[in-house]
Amino acid sequence: MPAAAAAARKLSRFQAAILLSAASCTLRKGGCRSRGGPAQPRRWPPRAGDSHLLRKQCQADQRMGAGEEELFKAINTIRFLSIDGVNKANSGHPGLPMGCAPMAYLLYNEYMTYNPKDPLWPNRDRFVLSAGHGSMLQYSLMHLAGYESVQLEDLKQFRQWGSKTPGHPENFETLGVEVTTGPLGQGIANAVGLAAAEKHLAARFNKPDATVVDHYTYCILGDGCNMEGISNEAASMAGHWGLGKLIALYDDNRISIDGHTEISFTEDVAARFVALGWHVQHVKDGNTDLDGLRAAIDAAKKDPRPSFIKVSTLIGYGSPNKADTHDVHGAPLGKDETAATRANLKWNYGEFEVPPEVYELFSNAQKKGAAAEEEWKSAYAAYKDKYPEEYAELNSIYSSALPAGWEDALPTFTPEDKALATRLHSQTMLNALANVLPGFWGGSADLAPSNMTLMKQFGDFQKDTPEERNLRFGVREHAMGAICNGIALHSPGFIPYCATFFIFTDYMRSAIRMAALSQAGTIFVMTHDSIGLGEDGPTHQPIEHLASFRAMPNILMLRPGDGNETAGAYLAAVLNAKGKTPSGKVRPSILALSRQGMPNLPTTSKEAVLKGGYIVHGGDAKPDVIFIATGSELSLAIDAAKEIEASGKVARVVSMVCWELFEDQDESYKNSILPPDVTARVSVEAGSTFGWERYVGQKGKAIGVDSFGASAPAPILYEKYGITKAAAVEAAKAQL
Amino acid sequence: MPAAAAAARKLSRFQAAILLSAASCTLRKGGCRSRGGPAQPRRWPPRAGDSHLLRKQCQADQRMGAGEEELFKAINTIRFLSIDGVNKANSGHPGLPMGCAPMAYLLYNEYMTYNPKDPLWPNRDRFVLSAGHGSMLQYSLMHLAGYESVQLEDLKQFRQWGSKTPGHPENFETLGVEVTTGPLGQGIANAVGLAAAEKHLAARFNKPDATVVDHYTYCILGDGCNMEGISNEAASMAGHWGLGKLIALYDDNRISIDGHTEISFTEDVAARFVALGWHVQHVKDGNTDLDGLRAAIDAAKKDPRPSFIKVSTLIGYGSPNKADTHDVHGAPLGKDETAATRANLKWNYGEFEVPPEVYELFSNAQKKGAAAEEEWKSAYAAYKDKYPEEYAELNSIYSSALPAGWEDALPTFTPEDKALATRLHSQTMLNALANVLPGFWGGSADLAPSNMTLMKQFGDFQKDTPEERNLRFGVREHAMGAICNGIALHSPGFIPYCATFFIFTDYMRSAIRMAALSQAGTIFVMTHDSIGLGEDGPTHQPIEHLASFRAMPNILMLRPGDGNETAGAYLAAVLNAKGKTPSGKVRPSILALSRQGMPNLPTTSKEAVLKGGYIVHGGDAKPDVIFIATGSELSLAIDAAKEIEASGKVARVVSMVCWELFEDQDESYKNSILPPDVTARVSVEAGSTFGWERYVGQKGKAIGVDSFGASAPAPILYEKYGITKAAAVEAAKAQL
Repeated sequence: MPAAAAAARKLSRFQAAILLSAASCTLRKGGCRSRGGPAQPRRWPPRAGDSHLLRKQCQADQRMGAGEEELFKAINTIRFLSIDGVNKANSGHPGLPMGCAPMAYLLYNEYMTYNPKDPLWPNRDRFVLSAGHGSMLQYSLMHLAGYESVQLEDLKQFRQWGSKTPGHPENFETLGVEVTTGPLGQGIANAVGLAAAEKHLAARFNKPDATVVDHYTYCILGDGCNMEGISNEAASMAGHWGLGKLIALYDDNRISIDGHTEISFTEDVAARFVALGWHVQHVKDGNTDLDGLRAAIDAAKKDPRPSFIKVSTLIGYGSPNKADTHDVHGAPLGKDETAATRANLKWNYGEFEVPPEVYELFSNAQKKGAAAEEEWKSAYAAYKDKYPEEYAELNSIYSSALPAGWEDALPTFTPEDKALATRLHSQTMLNALANVLPGFWGGSADLAPSNMTLMKQFGDFQKDTPEERNLRFGVREHAMGAICNGIALHSPGFIPYCATFFIFTDYMRSAIRMAALSQAGTIFVMTHDSIGLGEDGPTHQPIEHLASFRAMPNILMLRPGDGNETAGAYLAAVLNAKGKTPSGKVRPSILALSRQGMPNLPTTSKEAVLKGGYIVHGGDAKPDVIFIATGSELSLAIDAAKEIEASGKVARVVSMVCWELFEDQDESYKNSILPPDVTARVSVEAGSTFGWERYVGQKGKAIGVDSFGASAPAPILYEKYGITKAAAVEAAKAQL
Repeated sequence: MPAAAAAARKLSRFQAAILLSAASCTLRKGGCRSRGGPAQPRRWPPRAGDSHLLRKQCQADQRMGAGEEELFKAINTIRFLSIDGVNKANSGHPGLPMGCAPMAYLLYNEYMTYNPKDPLWPNRDRFVLSAGHGSMLQYSLMHLAGYESVQLEDLKQFRQWGSKTPGHPENFETLGVEVTTGPLGQGIANAVGLAAAEKHLAARFNKPDATVVDHYTYCILGDGCNMEGISNEAASMAGHWGLGKLIALYDDNRISIDGHTEISFTEDVAARFVALGWHVQHVKDGNTDLDGLRAAIDAAKKDPRPSFIKVSTLIGYGSPNKADTHDVHGAPLGKDETAATRANLKWNYGEFEVPPEVYELFSNAQKKGAAAEEEWKSAYAAYKDKYPEEYAELNSIYSSALPAGWEDALPTFTPEDKALATRLHSQTMLNALANVLPGFWGGSADLAPSNMTLMKQFGDFQKDTPEERNLRFGVREHAMGAICNGIALHSPGFIPYCATFFIFTDYMRSAIRMAALSQAGTIFVMTHDSIGLGEDGPTHQPIEHLASFRAMPNILMLRPGDGNETAGAYLAAVLNAKGKTPSGKVRPSILALSRQGMPNLPTTSKEAVLKGGYIVHGGDAKPDVIFIATGSELSLAIDAAKEIEASGKVARVVSMVCWELFEDQDESYKNSILPPDVTARVSVEAGSTFGWERYVGQKGKAIGVDSFGASAPAPILYEKYGITKAAAVEAAKAQL
């Protein structure tokens, strides 16, 4: 970076050019007055809180001199590409790109190391636009920087069907976008995951004589992100972990959809981040003070703590009538105001027109990135020679291929093996996988001894032991999920897992959904999966959760019934985390695991789990009645089937361990398991019956729990809620 | 309170009795050493961070003198009732009650004003145990204080089927418990709602010569609560709103399930609360320093900001081998350690034995509360005479009865009325209801102009205008939901509503579930309810959300299709918020509302919505095919039916606006709407088809969206995803 950065910094005296440049201002008490120039921002005189910005702009304006054109053009190009994209779509958010263009320009053309021609180069700096609604900022920069995924034509297709420039940044649509953002706060939590991943890899693989992992994670977040609880959780973790290479720039524009943030957001954000253990700075004028921004980023890079740079900006900077108002937040500027903004910023280019010298300016980033990648490749090759074992591990983490024979690590079980809760089997699997999958790591939201998620062979990932692989998330489910998504998307060989009680998926549902949407192969290990957890009562007992995730696209909801099925669930989870799916898409997985013990069954197998549903009792014999069960109710269903058989009928039991995998199968397989002409069917699952009509049909009976649970010992609850062999037998007999 | 408080404070010199009283200590560098007494806490010497506690205990111990018995007994009674309850249940959390007994004793017997003989007296102080796993603390106190809901026998039935003492505090099980807690962080957010409700009522109804609303809200929260993002959101709101009568005591015991909080929670919590605008104090020795606790609570009451009192305690205080370890957090002490604790605290009483003088001591609270209620009743009667209009409003808020004729405020619509989005109809309803329901208020999580949730006749509830009724939650969905639940449970006449995009129920799902579980009649106004929101793309487009809430117990999921149905949705929501349900239980409601406009249909009605599903096209004629649709797809289904009719068949369209209300109906009604012998059925809904088998059967066809959405204009998405009249017609024809 040094050469390019130095070159770019020569431009710093041009900073004034990003001003309301047409205005020739006279400094006055409390503000500045335009003299014959275009209209000033609507609210005039400015509030006490923003007057420093406007004053500063005027002062800087007066410092303008010859040669300022280049930076002016680069930053205003970003602004106008964003304005034009939103106008053409007639939908979107121009305000943030207009305000954040200066800081984002610096990141993309002075600070970040990346190669637009090889967007997935492992050692690239990561950038996350946590305020994802400002997506045109990122698309404009990616285009200028030379990403092939974002051509000028793509900018014109903003928010259109099939385009590479959707409403919010989507990693699965646009090569070079690291994570999917939009739901506020997810991005900063992803960024914490990206930075944690880097810190881990660097500590684990770098050698005194060989640095092969070394990059920063930058994030731009807004007021909305900072209001969301998830961001506080994630920031608290980042402070605790000492993620010194995470640099977050807070676009402090004081405007949200409801208007000025003074109506709902008057806390001292900077002081909060100090309390969270961050290095905190304030750039008071993010509109013009490029040197101030540079100084802050430089200081941030030097500080061992994660850095929070509060950058005060004007939303919609440059728009004479809409800047600093919520009108510019989420609606197109429109024809007239765009014209006024063009005049105001003296922008004499056409729609979507990029001055050639701006492309030229941005070629710095490409050259610098290509050189850095070459340099890294040499170092990596040398590392391979000198540290072949570590290289193999690291390379596995950089690859989506699975090591040969990895699945053999998953044990099998027979009925002679001890009856155990599936959460305990899960612990066995986690520990086994950690030995064969170098990228497998994770932890729990302060429930490790209950979720059984510790890898015994490793210590804790902590500030001073980042090479370790057990993550301690504290009671922060939402950030945990999003941090794991960041880890998953950092390197294709990472398979992060995270754990809590199944009920607390309610606290992290958006992160789980973002995993499904953005194809982050996170494994969500969810124990205490039904009323079977007993005394903790209805606040802790999941009811609707299985159904609620079966309805969610692109995620596996697995509920294994014994040791073999738990092994199979991990087999499926890992395969899907690597895109071994019908569509080739990565699918994350949720494992619902029991608190209570259950026997190992003779007919289960890990391979069968991959079919989603299969016969565990009754063989191929044409059944009179089919029981369909999952998880802790599987052995109960078999007991019921045996009782039915005692009366001379043929009963089949199907383990429906994963509906999604079953639906992946072809019709003939599905019909062989659930013959359409066998309509006597009983499902048994200690959860909502919602959705079970799919498999039991109109005539069948779904046994489950459709009200909230209660506080009592588990066996009593099963009895009271009618999840019993007797109820299953009775339901079957009623159909025979 | 003065007399009783003064009496109680005389006891303050007895504070030393709550020590490890048998230990006769000598102060030494860094700690104290027991001299012939029972064993000391396991980790010895103490950490730097807690040595002050142990030192202090030793010093205080030396100050012990005659007459200390009473407080010793009261506080230790709380401890041992909790220990015994958890032991007997063989399940639960003794550590928190043992550590928090001193502060909780002070609240229940010196500070709080309440009447155990009339637990619902409107002007009572509210108490919330946000760390709900410590429920035995609250049950023990409620028993000692004289709540009839918690007899000694109930303490022995802790966590058993049908008991009044479930695993976590449940307002719907135990009269005198204000809100349901357990999922961490919900309680402190509920407490913010309770305090906001008080501030609102006080500002709206008190007069210079008449104070009829005046109470405090106290909350005990723990490390877990403070790690959760929701608590930061809620605390930020409390600071912003200046809720000066909210006093939160933070049980800083530094132990969570994973062990010492140093492994995941090293932020400066107190500094964070300062940044959030709270008055913050630290009581360094919550185990013994009752005067320090009293001074802090006194100062908290005087400060105009919400108060955060960090109270450092030892978890499991008194247990010689388990105090200050996670072993005492969530497991019974067991026989041996209980015996050791008894010896250590010189507790010579039997299991569940309450010394008579402790009951006597607690009779203060009853006397004080009864007197306060009498005083208030006089004031309220005088208020009625002097301010009859205000009295009527306030009394309506204190009652679960609905004002006569309130429902007439909900307008009706004809096809001639303008086609509008249901979010716009919703705005009409909200504004209409606000005029006739004095307890109707709410707001949005920074999406008011999109959710259309402003009540135009009112201003914003803010620090200095708390009498107003528009709430501005900022981008804090989770806290918003829990705050509204607190408001709902403050007074039976409150009907709070809160709003965001439907997708962001993912951020507040636990709060919505807690509304359903705890029978808080909150109305969740969720707009932008499908891919029909268009360009914002898949991060913003709900898919599985309708299904996920239909699976949730005790909540209405309503998706109205035009103006009349939106009116009907509010009719249902308000009735259910008041317990007008088959079970008599309060049910909250979620309204899914469209971004896009849709026509007013000739056959819809608000009353019909109360049936959940009803015929909107085709009348009583026996149909050949039934279309079932909701919300924005209703008119599309009617268009499809008309096309089918053109080919000579009879088509019926059913609006299934609310599955839960439909399931409330008797079989004959349901069969009249969906005749079982008509198996040609087509459902149309722009969301997951998951669960629709219930109504379309095995032979029918569900038209919906089972993958994530995309970023494009809405009409294009409907076309691309096949939510079209043509698709509906084709699906019907395939069955005819």
